[in-house]
Amino acid sequence: MVSGQVSELQLRQLEKQLRYTFIKPALLLQALTHRSMGAENNERLEFLGDSILNFTAAAELFQAMPNADEGTLSRYRALLVKGETLTEIADELSLSELLILGEGELKSGGHRRKSTLADSVEAIIGAVYLDSGLDESTALVRRLLASRLGNLPQADELKDPKTRLQERMQKDALELPAYELVATYGKAHEQQFEVSCTIADAKPTKGLGTSRRKAEQAAAAAMLAQLA
Amino acid sequence: MVSGQVSELQLRQLEKQLRYTFIKPALLLQALTHRSMGAENNERLEFLGDSILNFTAAAELFQAMPNADEGTLSRYRALLVKGETLTEIADELSLSELLILGEGELKSGGHRRKSTLADSVEAIIGAVYLDSGLDESTALVRRLLASRLGNLPQADELKDPKTRLQERMQKDALELPAYELVATYGKAHEQQFEVSCTIADAKPTKGLGTSRRKAEQAAAAAMLAQLA
Repeated sequence: MVSGQVSELQLRQLEKQLRYTFIKPALLLQALTHRSMGAENNERLEFLGDSILNFTAAAELFQAMPNADEGTLSRYRALLVKGETLTEIADELSLSELLILGEGELKSGGHRRKSTLADSVEAIIGAVYLDSGLDESTALVRRLLASRLGNLPQADELKDPKTRLQERMQKDALELPAYELVATYGKAHEQQFEVSCTIADAKPTKGLGTSRRKAEQAAAAAMLAQLA
Repeated sequence: MVSGQVSELQLRQLEKQLRYTFIKPALLLQALTHRSMGAENNERLEFLGDSILNFTAAAELFQAMPNADEGTLSRYRALLVKGETLTEIADELSLSELLILGEGELKSGGHRRKSTLADSVEAIIGAVYLDSGLDESTALVRRLLASRLGNLPQADELKDPKTRLQERMQKDALELPAYELVATYGKAHEQQFEVSCTIADAKPTKGLGTSRRKAEQAAAAAMLAQLA
């Protein structure tokens, strides 16, 4: 049942951290198995786990924030389910030592790849669902998200820099920021954009990014930092 | 409890169609209430219902298609939860006659707006969840999706035209299609793109669209139609 790369002991320790013991341990192994190992991998479990994660985060936020509007709830959920958050959870669970990967993938550092780690967290959630149903899997999600749910940033901090800058100007009844493309660097598929952000009575700022939109966000962030 | 616009009888009929009777009928009313009515509207319920819909569709497809890979499952789910499908369900439930909208929204035909109708279906799912929990709400989703789950298109038909055309060329070991921008029409924010699609041994086709990508898809669809 246990692959050459993962010991029984390691699996028991993971179950302890998850505070869940699998009825069918094969499901946990499958959740840890990258597609580079062939047909029996964790991609279908990840598909399932992703939707349970999304639902549970939505339900928790709905309850915790009775006055938040739908846009605010969506932004908080995006924060809870984004790849970066899942990668952090994977690190807390030391999943990189437990992933079962094909040799090529292993050699190229696949067990430390952020997307692989994030996917395996979702797959574990899906595996718990198949092992014993929705209640256990949503309970697992609540445990995995608990410290983050108890420690959410202010709603304002979730908005992107352009939105925050615009709202700040509107609040003070000032003219809205102007963004202008200053330069582009590099060839077509590796282009960098440089954008300036101008508001009244402040030094213009600049931002760089791989798209115009990203460069505008960087310029707005620089402006917010300058105003702070 | 009942608004001026919706009668008790209409609500009872909707419950009959849903095969669900609300413990707190106020939740059903809220699910039918558009944001144009003010603060007590259905947007938060929609946020909740959307995630239950997504999870239930994912779980049903996972079970029904034990051999489908994650990409195929995702495409089927997108089909089941997209706005168009939800609008059809809203029509089956005659929701347009039951929506509670502000006067301005009503006058501008808001009760027939596709997005408003789709949103209210998700809000009803969220309302059932709040009324009696996850099991009842996922059971409702299964009822609403039943005919569609029993009647899914072939996996191939779910792919977009460019992908299908490319796969066809690859299968026959032919050169891949070439897309070229032929012309643009109109001003900046209402531009139309015209793109040609060329493959060996066939008459080139053309496609129009509001973005280059959409025009390419239209040209690929025209080519597939020509080859059929």
